[in-house]
Amino acid sequence: MAKTPRACILVLRLLSMAAAVSAAVVMATSHQTTSFFNIAIKAEFYHSPSFTFFLAANAVAGVYSLFPLLAPRAGLGSRWVVVLDVVVAMLLTAAVAAAGAISEVGKKGNEHAGWLPICGQVSKYCHHVMGALICGFVGLLCHTTVVLHTISTELDPLLP
Amino acid sequence: MAKTPRACILVLRLLSMAAAVSAAVVMATSHQTTSFFNIAIKAEFYHSPSFTFFLAANAVAGVYSLFPLLAPRAGLGSRWVVVLDVVVAMLLTAAVAAAGAISEVGKKGNEHAGWLPICGQVSKYCHHVMGALICGFVGLLCHTTVVLHTISTELDPLLP
Repeated sequence: MAKTPRACILVLRLLSMAAAVSAAVVMATSHQTTSFFNIAIKAEFYHSPSFTFFLAANAVAGVYSLFPLLAPRAGLGSRWVVVLDVVVAMLLTAAVAAAGAISEVGKKGNEHAGWLPICGQVSKYCHHVMGALICGFVGLLCHTTVVLHTISTELDPLLP
Repeated sequence: MAKTPRACILVLRLLSMAAAVSAAVVMATSHQTTSFFNIAIKAEFYHSPSFTFFLAANAVAGVYSLFPLLAPRAGLGSRWVVVLDVVVAMLLTAAVAAAGAISEVGKKGNEHAGWLPICGQVSKYCHHVMGALICGFVGLLCHTTVVLHTISTELDPLLP
């Protein structure tokens, strides 16, 4: 691999790590207490299993990001980096998709199911969750770029 | 690659295609009309964007599955198969995660958000969606096994 792409990959890996850690932190700090017709409403990220999963997946991805930077660059170590990179990409995809699906219901509701939107009542909480989702999406994008670049350039061109 | 693993990969690819097509068909046929206290309730998969996305993603994966079976086995064609395999794996992951997150709310509700479970009223619909999710998950599992096996065995062991 040329020197410039390797530097780009390193920058993308660091960006991905920063975005994943930020996503986990922003989601962990997402909470709001408000009142609606004198009824106290408390919104916390752990009220939704999808948001808890989002936090856990991004925390795992953040910690994992150290592994490719420390793993040996040739032989089996390098293979494991690519395999684990794909697994982490799928984990981040699942996290963003699940949290995104629930956020969409939180924002727009679902009239057919009788689920009302909640973002009118807990807008600060919704903005916080949206921030976490954006960080998670940026991290996923950087990580996916690294994975696809690695596979497309380093796959054995003579494979059967 | 030895003869037996190649046959296994072919079987897994065919299984993955069958599961993805089944998931799309089962989701597309998920609907139920019932009444609750004389109020007509109609449940259709397209009432939820996540279920529509699930159907589309599995249909795309089903059609794509033909590509690796027809693509040339050496050189650039083979590289593209691996890159697209990873993209499709992420697409299927997103579909299963998003549809799974909404199904979980449909089944258990979310008392904090005031979203009531709907599966008590439209149980046939919920079972249908669950069937689609199981098919989608099996397809994702088969496809992921193929992707990880290909990467772990066919990545250039001398890559820098």
